[in-house]
Amino acid sequence: MEIILAREYGFCFGVRRAISLAEEALKSGKHVASLGPIIHNPLEVSRLESIGLRVIEDISELREGESILIRSHGVPLEIIQELKDRGIDIIDATCPLVARAQRMVDFLTSEGYRVIIAGEQGHPEVKGLVSYGKNNASVVSTLEEIPELSREKIGIVGQTTFSLERFREIVGEVVSKSWEVRIFNTLCDASRKRQLAVEELVDKTDAIIVIGGRNSANTRRLVDIALSKGATVYHIESWDEVLPEWFIGKDKIGITAGASTPDWVIDKVLEKIRELCYQ
Amino acid sequence: MEIILAREYGFCFGVRRAISLAEEALKSGKHVASLGPIIHNPLEVSRLESIGLRVIEDISELREGESILIRSHGVPLEIIQELKDRGIDIIDATCPLVARAQRMVDFLTSEGYRVIIAGEQGHPEVKGLVSYGKNNASVVSTLEEIPELSREKIGIVGQTTFSLERFREIVGEVVSKSWEVRIFNTLCDASRKRQLAVEELVDKTDAIIVIGGRNSANTRRLVDIALSKGATVYHIESWDEVLPEWFIGKDKIGITAGASTPDWVIDKVLEKIRELCYQ
Repeated sequence: MEIILAREYGFCFGVRRAISLAEEALKSGKHVASLGPIIHNPLEVSRLESIGLRVIEDISELREGESILIRSHGVPLEIIQELKDRGIDIIDATCPLVARAQRMVDFLTSEGYRVIIAGEQGHPEVKGLVSYGKNNASVVSTLEEIPELSREKIGIVGQTTFSLERFREIVGEVVSKSWEVRIFNTLCDASRKRQLAVEELVDKTDAIIVIGGRNSANTRRLVDIALSKGATVYHIESWDEVLPEWFIGKDKIGITAGASTPDWVIDKVLEKIRELCYQ
Repeated sequence: MEIILAREYGFCFGVRRAISLAEEALKSGKHVASLGPIIHNPLEVSRLESIGLRVIEDISELREGESILIRSHGVPLEIIQELKDRGIDIIDATCPLVARAQRMVDFLTSEGYRVIIAGEQGHPEVKGLVSYGKNNASVVSTLEEIPELSREKIGIVGQTTFSLERFREIVGEVVSKSWEVRIFNTLCDASRKRQLAVEELVDKTDAIIVIGGRNSANTRRLVDIALSKGATVYHIESWDEVLPEWFIGKDKIGITAGASTPDWVIDKVLEKIRELCYQ
């Protein structure tokens, strides 16, 4: 039996980079506190804690001599400023795509545009983006939330993980109501690539195993896509759940994983499958 | 019986202005040739010819001492340049909204944007707009015509009479494929306002008379909207067609007209109705 991995799966570039930066800093002997969990995956958070990473919820919890890790979502400008003022060592793991979106909000604001951020109110990344808008940026997640627009110049930037369809809809609506609109498409296509990859995988395999939290929206999306293409799908959170009967009479098994699933969990699943099939 | 005019009907601002400029120039004693017909309405073109306006198809047809009238659609930059080089008196009746769109194509090009013009290939206004793009502007009327885009900066400008729905679609598609998109919404809402006005009119009247060419797309659109709202609709091109039985038992009659219908044709229709009903 052959195991085929999806062309793209698991952690995105930004999350992978943040975890590497945390690991490097810890290896170099730094005491590191992460402002909020690096990733919404308890297994991975426990692993990082076991090698010394401390998770704090507020910068007031920082201990003497501790470095702070800014996770891939980024943080509001005021927090960076306060950390700098206090002379704290910052390990900035803000995803480069998020940092670019922050720069674009800053640029549009300085050029006199009224900025609309297409994204989810309250999302950590969005809180960061908004802070670059100098009290002049609005967050919009649906057409209904678009503010009244007069003949102002409008700038639009998106939360990197926002839906492309909704981004297009919001852009269309704003464009139809405004004279000048300047748009930076700051959306990241990591999720989309994972979705396309699972579609491809269905065509090449007899069954698909999707690894990721049952509460993870992006993981469930991968499951739904595979099901809608008529695949036999097994959704698991851990290697413990893999059953030998799944592989009986199967020639090719496809594997993919949600964006919050660490590589080592995927590796353990692969190990378990090999154990069951090749022992 | 009461006659109610639509809140907006007939000539748009740009066409009305072009005709005024032609009339003024002729009154001041100038010999004027219009480059192409000012409007696609033979009755109006004949009227203007009767007061001295000559219609030519190419600037080579200009006679010694004649002024040239640029109609509301505007013309390519090269034509203006040639006319200036030849020292010809130019009566520029380019619609101010079209002139603004031309300036925006010029501006975006000079700022290094690749320009997309959302409009109909071959339309006189579009030919003018394209000329401001220094061989770097593409005309797109459907999603299929959008060129391959890499990570260039894209500027979008619309033909003033282009459909807002298609403009939004094209913008959405380009935005989803590009990193930076700068849009000038140069669409004119004259047609849309006339369409909204006929809807309102249906609610207030017992029957609607729509005046305009049977081949005029925007006139037919007014007829269709009124019919779809359940109105009794009479579509006429001329006052000759008005029949007395249309008004029997009617309390309120609504009147509207397509964008190429001159005021004096509308006046003659009103006169005819009054004659039939009040004599």
